[in-house]
Amino acid sequence: MKDVQALVFDVFGTVVDWRSGVARALAEFLPARGGAHLDPFAVADAWRRRYQPAMEECRAGRRPFTRLDVLHRENLELVLKDHGVDLASCTEADLDHLNRAWHRLDPWPDVLLGLSRLRRKYFLAPASNGNILLLANMAKRAGIPWDAVLGAEATQAYKPQREAYTRTAEILGLAPHQVCLVAAHNGDLRAARKAGLASAFVARPTEHGPAQGTDLVAEDPWDCVAESFVDLAAKLDC
Amino acid sequence: MKDVQALVFDVFGTVVDWRSGVARALAEFLPARGGAHLDPFAVADAWRRRYQPAMEECRAGRRPFTRLDVLHRENLELVLKDHGVDLASCTEADLDHLNRAWHRLDPWPDVLLGLSRLRRKYFLAPASNGNILLLANMAKRAGIPWDAVLGAEATQAYKPQREAYTRTAEILGLAPHQVCLVAAHNGDLRAARKAGLASAFVARPTEHGPAQGTDLVAEDPWDCVAESFVDLAAKLDC
Repeated sequence: MKDVQALVFDVFGTVVDWRSGVARALAEFLPARGGAHLDPFAVADAWRRRYQPAMEECRAGRRPFTRLDVLHRENLELVLKDHGVDLASCTEADLDHLNRAWHRLDPWPDVLLGLSRLRRKYFLAPASNGNILLLANMAKRAGIPWDAVLGAEATQAYKPQREAYTRTAEILGLAPHQVCLVAAHNGDLRAARKAGLASAFVARPTEHGPAQGTDLVAEDPWDCVAESFVDLAAKLDC
Repeated sequence: MKDVQALVFDVFGTVVDWRSGVARALAEFLPARGGAHLDPFAVADAWRRRYQPAMEECRAGRRPFTRLDVLHRENLELVLKDHGVDLASCTEADLDHLNRAWHRLDPWPDVLLGLSRLRRKYFLAPASNGNILLLANMAKRAGIPWDAVLGAEATQAYKPQREAYTRTAEILGLAPHQVCLVAAHNGDLRAARKAGLASAFVARPTEHGPAQGTDLVAEDPWDCVAESFVDLAAKLDC
């Protein structure tokens, strides 16, 4: 980690608790649209299951790069239909507000303190598949102190595409080994390492709810493994 | 201005005093390289005169979009040669540090207070020809509270190209008329207005030094004309 000058962060799951935040928005939305019997967490999980396949259309070149707000909105309409919600009963403003639940997610409790300490020594930016507006609105609402808002819209590539990592380093004027990805997902870190980045793992054992079975531990010898962002700051002498 | 949700800012000249900052860096650099007789302000002006022609190569399509740090560096070497500085006597680290004088510019005295008030009501971002790293390092050093770092590298277009304005609005999820450009340059505002944006003029009568003859007053009926960023905040009820 000695050459590292910038820390770039996976966001959904690593920085913020997307599942609780999306379920909270659905719990407000569904009852008035005939969905009082639906479990908001189950609908949140169904919405999230459509995330990777939608990005894969762009990665595979079957569709030009399309920002995540657009993919989320398409997926939302499909998920609501799947769950029997009558879209005709929803206004455009209702659907847009619900879609922007992804802009209103809360950080895990250790994030703000950890980042404020890490920021003294490192350049901090998201390396997320979220689009710029999504990440910036999230940061403004929660007070996340990014030095710049990067991510898929800046690199025009969706992780784990190699360019998502290498172009992030290029934008930062750094060689890949001077940039460290911080993520709660071993697969993301594997792709970052393959692209030459350093790697730090912070487990988020309840990202997918109480019964989570994946990404509970570091599966490879990552350059740093920490319990939380505050622990990461301590391990990096911040 | 009633529909405006985001304020986007020209940076060189409008937010920061580039001429004093670049001259300060040159005043440190030149004496040890046989340039003690040179006026750092004159060299700063010469460096800046190469700015528009370099971007024009990209605008005209004779060169692919190239971030400003790269254009600045090419121009720096030309300017130093023009002024008789022996480049062989400079290390790569010296030149890179000098080139990053553009990352270390100071805001005009009204900027931080004005932006901190405007930020409560509006989404704030640079709409500059600077690249992301340049603008982010400048903001981190000076404490400029951008909500996101946009600009030419995000839009892949150099002002006054229409796309520099319209793609900024797209990234923000807004229609052009919901975005207002704040600039000290009438030409920038004219191009922004043509692209559908709202316009606010703040004069910076010493951007080019004490004898400045351009952009001393608002030349068109802009949507807002203010004396400073603090006055702009007051005029926008922030």
